[in-house]
Amino acid sequence: MKDIYNVGLIGFGTIGAGVVETFNRNLDLMEQKVGTKIKLKKVVDLDIETDRGIEVDKSILSTDVNDILEDPEIDIVIELIGGYEPAKSFILKALSNGKNVVTANKALLAKHWEEILETANKSNVRICFEASVGGGIPLLEPLNEGLAANRIQSIYGIINGTANYILTKMTDEGLDFEDVLKEAQEKGYAEQDPTFDIEGHDTAQKLIILTILGFGIYVEQDKFHVEGISKIKQEDIEFIKNELGYAIKLLAISRIEEGELEVRVHPTLIPQDHLLASVNDVFNGVYLVGDIVGPVMMYGQGAGMMPTASAVVGDCLDIMENMEHKNIYGPGNTEVKKIKAINEIKSKYYLRLTAIDKPGVLHTISGILSEFEISIESVTQKRQDEGQEVPIFMVTHEAIEENIQKAVGMINDLDFVEKDTLFIRILED
Amino acid sequence: MKDIYNVGLIGFGTIGAGVVETFNRNLDLMEQKVGTKIKLKKVVDLDIETDRGIEVDKSILSTDVNDILEDPEIDIVIELIGGYEPAKSFILKALSNGKNVVTANKALLAKHWEEILETANKSNVRICFEASVGGGIPLLEPLNEGLAANRIQSIYGIINGTANYILTKMTDEGLDFEDVLKEAQEKGYAEQDPTFDIEGHDTAQKLIILTILGFGIYVEQDKFHVEGISKIKQEDIEFIKNELGYAIKLLAISRIEEGELEVRVHPTLIPQDHLLASVNDVFNGVYLVGDIVGPVMMYGQGAGMMPTASAVVGDCLDIMENMEHKNIYGPGNTEVKKIKAINEIKSKYYLRLTAIDKPGVLHTISGILSEFEISIESVTQKRQDEGQEVPIFMVTHEAIEENIQKAVGMINDLDFVEKDTLFIRILED
Repeated sequence: MKDIYNVGLIGFGTIGAGVVETFNRNLDLMEQKVGTKIKLKKVVDLDIETDRGIEVDKSILSTDVNDILEDPEIDIVIELIGGYEPAKSFILKALSNGKNVVTANKALLAKHWEEILETANKSNVRICFEASVGGGIPLLEPLNEGLAANRIQSIYGIINGTANYILTKMTDEGLDFEDVLKEAQEKGYAEQDPTFDIEGHDTAQKLIILTILGFGIYVEQDKFHVEGISKIKQEDIEFIKNELGYAIKLLAISRIEEGELEVRVHPTLIPQDHLLASVNDVFNGVYLVGDIVGPVMMYGQGAGMMPTASAVVGDCLDIMENMEHKNIYGPGNTEVKKIKAINEIKSKYYLRLTAIDKPGVLHTISGILSEFEISIESVTQKRQDEGQEVPIFMVTHEAIEENIQKAVGMINDLDFVEKDTLFIRILED
Repeated sequence: MKDIYNVGLIGFGTIGAGVVETFNRNLDLMEQKVGTKIKLKKVVDLDIETDRGIEVDKSILSTDVNDILEDPEIDIVIELIGGYEPAKSFILKALSNGKNVVTANKALLAKHWEEILETANKSNVRICFEASVGGGIPLLEPLNEGLAANRIQSIYGIINGTANYILTKMTDEGLDFEDVLKEAQEKGYAEQDPTFDIEGHDTAQKLIILTILGFGIYVEQDKFHVEGISKIKQEDIEFIKNELGYAIKLLAISRIEEGELEVRVHPTLIPQDHLLASVNDVFNGVYLVGDIVGPVMMYGQGAGMMPTASAVVGDCLDIMENMEHKNIYGPGNTEVKKIKAINEIKSKYYLRLTAIDKPGVLHTISGILSEFEISIESVTQKRQDEGQEVPIFMVTHEAIEENIQKAVGMINDLDFVEKDTLFIRILED
């Protein structure tokens, strides 16, 4: 074992500042744990002038990334600039130069996983990315190591804090989507352009990483169904909560069904007494089922300066303690025969139709559903004056998604149906 | 790295059979993960005749423990016989003979931690015990590794399935303690002598282990407050749930308050919207707070044949992958000045008094509380005919436990107080 480990940090933004602050606060603890000296030797950013509000030795700041990438003394490179380039080039160069890499860059990993892993393995160095999913929650390591005796059967994740915050507020305070989004933007919980979070793209990138670890399969983002929460209205939330007794969550799902893998991101109804229903506000939770262990859940802050820094620094310590550990992520010899298309899945569904109330409406709709072998578990039509627009809420028994899609398409074409019908999948596990 | 790792299992009971079954089912997966061959070379038990209902190669069974302890080819010894002796002698001999040890033996670790750790370190081998707390939940490893950048501030654990099952049933079904206990015994969720579980001793042993990992401090079991759930009545549950909006859980608590460590096991009122309140039935959950990461929770099946086997085999794989890893458990240089006695803690309290309803009762009781600087947040006395026995429910503001104990002692001595007053601490975090 070495006497000292040198760390280089690329990217002195919010998370980067959290990493520096973690070194400031807990270096003593970390050195005891590893049993060597640890040094944050260099911090590189284009901007090294702005005050980050934390203590930092000016002499370790640099604007030249090669002060890290080309320094033979640096053992571990932390990449926190995000995005594809130049992050990708920096990571590949660090790995090629024999440096272990820690990153929180989910976008990059989700897109270029195979190239990054291959480069790390060629140089016999480690690539760690605990912070890329679930912020500070110990998640990837338990999944990959602690549960290594298991065949993973299913992964259900609430892994986007912004979407979860919006759904929680809509549920608890009866507010509309647009109003909560505006408030979230003011509080800094949502970006000015919130598309990435609320339309499920962030969740999808993280799900790609979870799927690698859980099932050993790399699925590209355009190969699976991704659906956000922007179509959900207060009337849905209210009915789902008060009449059906479900919570609604934006869920990342990766699971084996009859030997086939389902990978999908969409809003999902979850029974109130399911543990995932208690994952509220900006918190994240990942619920997974192994064939030996049964269900397990990890919960915590999925984003933010310090929680994410906790995972980044945790990875650094893991590398120092287990420098020889191989990059073995996920089970190698997977038995998955194929990845299921979204229209092949089976689920129960919640439907919200909007129709003009007149005689024969329900008869026509139920006829279409019946034609596609969709049987109805419950239907609720609120009282309304005849000739007015009225919402009709339905819950189906288990049906094949293709049939739901076709039936909904036909229903939407009816002349008394005023708005597109919303359908949301229901989790029964 | 070696070509093959040989494992020896001592103890072919329920968990031992689970370990054999895990090898049967998932050896292919495990070998891919580690990148070597893995062999369960020997299984030792006094009884090798009884059919365990699983497949096992008869030639690996033996009644002689030295077939494992003295076999130079065996790298890892799994101890699953439980109890103090001969488990302790076997573990010490295995360690001294240069073998890594995996155990689920919480009683032994809680009592002889220092000797076992020292013996392992002397031989430069690993001692792993993920299964000793929280069954299959990845818990100790995340606490010790993934969160290594953190100073742990508090640990709250629901870590006894029997007690949690009883409290959940009492809450959900309105049954009395004795009736639920009887049902739990019939279902096999509780032992015929349930004292160990329901009086908190099992929880206390696990808390000792969590405290080592979280705070680097070994506390002996007779040095902290341990209190079970047998005094809780249905009238408490009902009032706590319906009138106060709290859940009640048997909680293991280890936390830093003003530089001092609190270590205690007792029933605790938890706000309904706290994640721990959703840990029901036989499930376990450990909620912990780190200074960098904030709150994190791990959840799952805290006992049982297969979940526990998952943790045992997970430890074996971890050892194979990281043979050189040191036994560094918990932060070394702790800043904890002292361990707080139970009468020094501060808490809000729930009180249930039983008095004869007559004029002046409340006046006298509130006078005693006031004398000990305990202020009352709420009081509820159900209507009753004068002269009858009546329960009085109170919630106090934060008070010092010593004052509560003295006040309750004085109240119990009043001639119109019929039964011992019950007081339960309330978690505010």
